[in-house]
Amino acid sequence: MRYFLLTLLLPLSYQSNAQAVAPLTAQLDNVSLTFALGADGRPSYAVTYRGRSVITPSRLGLSFVDGRGFDGPLQLLGSEVKNVDETWQPVWGEVKDIRNHYQQLTVHLRQPLAPGQKLDVVYRKLDIVFRVFADGVGFRYEFPAQSALTYFAVQDEHTEFNLPGNHKAFWIPGDYDSNEYAYTTSRLSEVNTTPIAAIQEKAAPTRVQTPLMLKSDDGLYINIHEAALVNYPALFLNVDTRNFHLSSQLVPAATGAKAYLQAPEHTPWRTIVVSDKAPDMLASKLILNLNEPTKLTDTGWIQPQKFVGVWWEMQVGKASWNYADTTNIKLAGTNWNKLRPSGRHGATTANVKRYIDFAAKHHIPSVLVEGWNVGWEDWANNWKEEVFDFVTPYPDFDVDELQRYAASKGVRVMMHHETSSSVTNYERRQEDAYRFMKAHGYNAVKTGYVGRIIPRGEHHDGQWMSNHYVRTAELTAASQIMVDMHEAVRPTGLHRTYPNWLACESARGNEFNAFSEGNRPEHETILPFTRLMGGPMDYTPGIFKLQGYNPSVPERRVHTTLVKQLALYVTMYSPLQMAADLPENYEKHLDAFQFIEDVPVDWDDTRILAAEPGDYLTTVRKAKGKDEWYLGAITDEQARQQPVPLNFLTPGVRYEAIIYADGKQADWQRNPTAYQITKKVVDAKSTLQLRLAPGGGAAVSFKPIAAR
Amino acid sequence: MRYFLLTLLLPLSYQSNAQAVAPLTAQLDNVSLTFALGADGRPSYAVTYRGRSVITPSRLGLSFVDGRGFDGPLQLLGSEVKNVDETWQPVWGEVKDIRNHYQQLTVHLRQPLAPGQKLDVVYRKLDIVFRVFADGVGFRYEFPAQSALTYFAVQDEHTEFNLPGNHKAFWIPGDYDSNEYAYTTSRLSEVNTTPIAAIQEKAAPTRVQTPLMLKSDDGLYINIHEAALVNYPALFLNVDTRNFHLSSQLVPAATGAKAYLQAPEHTPWRTIVVSDKAPDMLASKLILNLNEPTKLTDTGWIQPQKFVGVWWEMQVGKASWNYADTTNIKLAGTNWNKLRPSGRHGATTANVKRYIDFAAKHHIPSVLVEGWNVGWEDWANNWKEEVFDFVTPYPDFDVDELQRYAASKGVRVMMHHETSSSVTNYERRQEDAYRFMKAHGYNAVKTGYVGRIIPRGEHHDGQWMSNHYVRTAELTAASQIMVDMHEAVRPTGLHRTYPNWLACESARGNEFNAFSEGNRPEHETILPFTRLMGGPMDYTPGIFKLQGYNPSVPERRVHTTLVKQLALYVTMYSPLQMAADLPENYEKHLDAFQFIEDVPVDWDDTRILAAEPGDYLTTVRKAKGKDEWYLGAITDEQARQQPVPLNFLTPGVRYEAIIYADGKQADWQRNPTAYQITKKVVDAKSTLQLRLAPGGGAAVSFKPIAAR
Repeated sequence: MRYFLLTLLLPLSYQSNAQAVAPLTAQLDNVSLTFALGADGRPSYAVTYRGRSVITPSRLGLSFVDGRGFDGPLQLLGSEVKNVDETWQPVWGEVKDIRNHYQQLTVHLRQPLAPGQKLDVVYRKLDIVFRVFADGVGFRYEFPAQSALTYFAVQDEHTEFNLPGNHKAFWIPGDYDSNEYAYTTSRLSEVNTTPIAAIQEKAAPTRVQTPLMLKSDDGLYINIHEAALVNYPALFLNVDTRNFHLSSQLVPAATGAKAYLQAPEHTPWRTIVVSDKAPDMLASKLILNLNEPTKLTDTGWIQPQKFVGVWWEMQVGKASWNYADTTNIKLAGTNWNKLRPSGRHGATTANVKRYIDFAAKHHIPSVLVEGWNVGWEDWANNWKEEVFDFVTPYPDFDVDELQRYAASKGVRVMMHHETSSSVTNYERRQEDAYRFMKAHGYNAVKTGYVGRIIPRGEHHDGQWMSNHYVRTAELTAASQIMVDMHEAVRPTGLHRTYPNWLACESARGNEFNAFSEGNRPEHETILPFTRLMGGPMDYTPGIFKLQGYNPSVPERRVHTTLVKQLALYVTMYSPLQMAADLPENYEKHLDAFQFIEDVPVDWDDTRILAAEPGDYLTTVRKAKGKDEWYLGAITDEQARQQPVPLNFLTPGVRYEAIIYADGKQADWQRNPTAYQITKKVVDAKSTLQLRLAPGGGAAVSFKPIAAR
Repeated sequence: MRYFLLTLLLPLSYQSNAQAVAPLTAQLDNVSLTFALGADGRPSYAVTYRGRSVITPSRLGLSFVDGRGFDGPLQLLGSEVKNVDETWQPVWGEVKDIRNHYQQLTVHLRQPLAPGQKLDVVYRKLDIVFRVFADGVGFRYEFPAQSALTYFAVQDEHTEFNLPGNHKAFWIPGDYDSNEYAYTTSRLSEVNTTPIAAIQEKAAPTRVQTPLMLKSDDGLYINIHEAALVNYPALFLNVDTRNFHLSSQLVPAATGAKAYLQAPEHTPWRTIVVSDKAPDMLASKLILNLNEPTKLTDTGWIQPQKFVGVWWEMQVGKASWNYADTTNIKLAGTNWNKLRPSGRHGATTANVKRYIDFAAKHHIPSVLVEGWNVGWEDWANNWKEEVFDFVTPYPDFDVDELQRYAASKGVRVMMHHETSSSVTNYERRQEDAYRFMKAHGYNAVKTGYVGRIIPRGEHHDGQWMSNHYVRTAELTAASQIMVDMHEAVRPTGLHRTYPNWLACESARGNEFNAFSEGNRPEHETILPFTRLMGGPMDYTPGIFKLQGYNPSVPERRVHTTLVKQLALYVTMYSPLQMAADLPENYEKHLDAFQFIEDVPVDWDDTRILAAEPGDYLTTVRKAKGKDEWYLGAITDEQARQQPVPLNFLTPGVRYEAIIYADGKQADWQRNPTAYQITKKVVDAKSTLQLRLAPGGGAAVSFKPIAAR
């Protein structure tokens, strides 16, 4: 680590009112940050990229429930600048080495003394720490240990992100309890969530979620999000549709306050990633770098992995999570053996064995099983506290037999803990549930938070739940369990700190193609610029039967070609990737399934070859520890020609490229399943000409040809 | 059980609007109950005692959050009457046998069909069940299993208790989070909590708590409370100070709704105990009878007991709960061994041994130790979630050594779990905490709920916390642990169902004499008519040093004589009684302490010899399994002569009576410690003349003289 420290302690004018001070700056490469304290004592910041305005002067500050927050005038006590340049290795990820290079500006502020107050009067202190990277800025509020400020409650955060123009924005409504929306692309002036989120009681008409992706008319790509969301509510943004100012909206607790804190403490980092090239946004490691290194010393048990599961058949209505068709069950006192089985239950011993067999045959390490445990008869949307106990299988799910069978096949069964958002109930039973898992050979759990949170009045994205997700990451790690959280708050890079936290859902997944009007073809070209900025998603790609999968809604379809489903394994990075379709659907296309079987989930290198949010994305990645490369290219509803120079390949090495391409007549609407697989010998000087069908894609594997 | 059933199914007028029906009645001895459905379809009830009106016609009903509750017109589907007369034995209590004798009227109601609706339209059904006892009435709402009503949220309960006059009332303010108030005695027209509870944000000016004790001008004693508070918020009462109507106020959840329920379900019983004799109120077993029998089959491990404790010395400021004087501690990451001890910590190994020695010498089974575990440095009033872990002792508390030492002396150490009302934190750690207890020889725990509840927005007396208390009773029972809950909701007779739940505080205890202006001399004559109607209180009597105990507030004093402190062991029934003062204070009055050493905490019989709320109370009880009797007599600030005919003694047997009397000059204000102890041989024909000093009392033990 290179490091130097510059301290400038300004003369303190204790008895005076606030005074304007000279702006403070920090800079790295093309990015420049300015902090200013105005004549009124109000702090603000601004950001430029190559001299172009990214954030115009914007307010900083917080108000407290006790009325003595940092929303009034402040005085500057001093500041420091330091430079850091270090490289670290993630436990798993898109690249082997991550450079963490920034200039840090720390600003020390305090509340001013009232006129006539003496020097020894106790005042409250606040630090604001900025880190300027080559691809953006992160900053946070820090509350140092101090006698005048111990316990406090944040009423509002007043951070603003003022934009110089009416940018194009990719946004979803500001629902405190769900991120499962399709993105709207509009000018900031046109943001209006009302038609989309009318049923969401908490949504305000111009409140949107982060990561918010923006593009300026002069070609700047800007992403606003946060890093390291711990012990704080999620940050939402209120859009001023006339002035293009974004103001902070923290998700409230049941009391209406936003965060209950104890100094020393700090907020999460507010992040602004910026570039004039779209691929740079996807290559940014700014958010990861702002997270703390993991404290885990033994990480060998953490295994990025693919899985199949008893899941899609429920999504498409062919099977059910519930065992019986009863609709009024109380967890305590129900004799589950006496319920009349509906005959539609998915998680039966026999059916799970079928998936285990398929996984074993195709080298898929795990089988997720949902609906294995009692309570699904009336589990959702009743704000009911005692729904699941997480340790009692249905009568037709033989946990011991499946443990034995899976082990004999070299496959793991993946646990499922749907909490129905009754989090108090889950927390009471959580450690017992993990003991049950370990006793039965499970080492990974998918958690779910469908419905309204209990404690009632709390939200999925509030401080109390933020702490729950982190606690769950810690509790699972303590038992060497990997975790995949669904309906959790969207990620903020915490997988650096908790590498057993493999993925979240926390966005509109592939499943929406099963039970709704579906995801538009552009959806997967936007997600990497929005939701995936914070971390991996369990998107559940790999649907091969793209039409007619839901017997009761035959017109329903997936809005991609089959090949685009393959490409998603590369374009949507995750260490946890489901092969979501049914074994019988894969068995009809085993040649195409070969790509899913081959594609890794952990990488030494990643290159974004072409990208434009809402339009297209081409990504190539190098397998962990091998000279193998995997390429995914996707497009929206437009067909595209995509020339791909293969100069990422090792010079002088010949590779066999297996090209999974949309068929000539392929089209997501008319002919989604048409594909062709060709093999070609290539090297670093070759160029591939990829043709992407409307709603289509391409997937390519490159393996070196052994020298003879 | 005598039993007969009368079903009268009235002709159903499905297509008609609501119609008035003939009133339905139930009756036992002097108490009569009438249910009526008015011409407007509104249900009401009324109660009389010997023909005198107790409750004038009063509204019944509930509204739901979904707007389809039972607050509109209803139709009568039918009704049933049955009689029950049975006797049962409590695991511990005031009497050996309890008679449960009542006539039950069940009324079946439904929402009416709208005009033109068809017979097969689904409507919602409600039962109201009344039980009429010789000393009052209990009734509750029952929601039968039905397809039209499964999950629902109660918005308000509309039960009213309309009184025919401007009765005298003994009341405390309607604070959703505390019962620790002095009682005000006033006419209903004068109820005004503002001067008392101005600091209580939730208090409304005429909202009071139950048990509400009333006395009419014509000499009727009436107590309004509830029985079996499970899965529902506590019942408060809004007083209409002009019409003397009491309306129900349920304690809200964080959302504002009152109760989240799933049919089949029922509310707690609403209780009205009535008599023209004050002692009958205290002898009533109506509330216990309305609770469910215990499901515990093995209750041998449940031991009513006395205890001393490292506690009063903290209350009076001589020692501290906290180990260090630091004021900003985080549970995680603090190295407790490195904190600088203040030197004032009470729960040291050596100090606990001193209490163990005293307990062993005086046959006191247990020693409570508060402040033994880390976290007390800044535990209260910060709405902080991670305060205590319940398993980490302070460095100067040697849990293993004390386990060994206590066992060698035949004494138990009693566990203390102050939660600081961070109940989510406690629930996460609760089972670990009980495992820790069992591993270290503890079989009883005192829990505490000081401060604001987490989940934030919930209240001590709301549904969520009601469930927590019951869950805690169940969890402790599962580990054969007895429990004493402080700052919990006031009891409703659940100790019948959970006999390991020995006591609650849940009222203004003796401790208020340590740290406030204290309890007025009348306080302990009111508590049995109010708080104790629901169950035993851990009042912590037995203070012998009545003045000058708090070094920093020398004028502070206990508002009783020493002898009244003795009498409280009899007048305030509890299976768990602390001898609350310091060993060194007892050692100065070991002759008086002999009564505390002798007095049992479990009884075969109890007689209330004289009682008037706010004035005086004389109670005599027969020890469990022995022909020994113990008498307590207390008065308010008035001196009294109390002749006591001893006709409760076994005829023909001679007893040695040891009479602990106020000294001739005794007076709680001027000379509280003066007492005289005399011995006398008496029999059933004798009469004792007791003289009670102002704020004083008398205590007497009667042991048979062995025949020679």
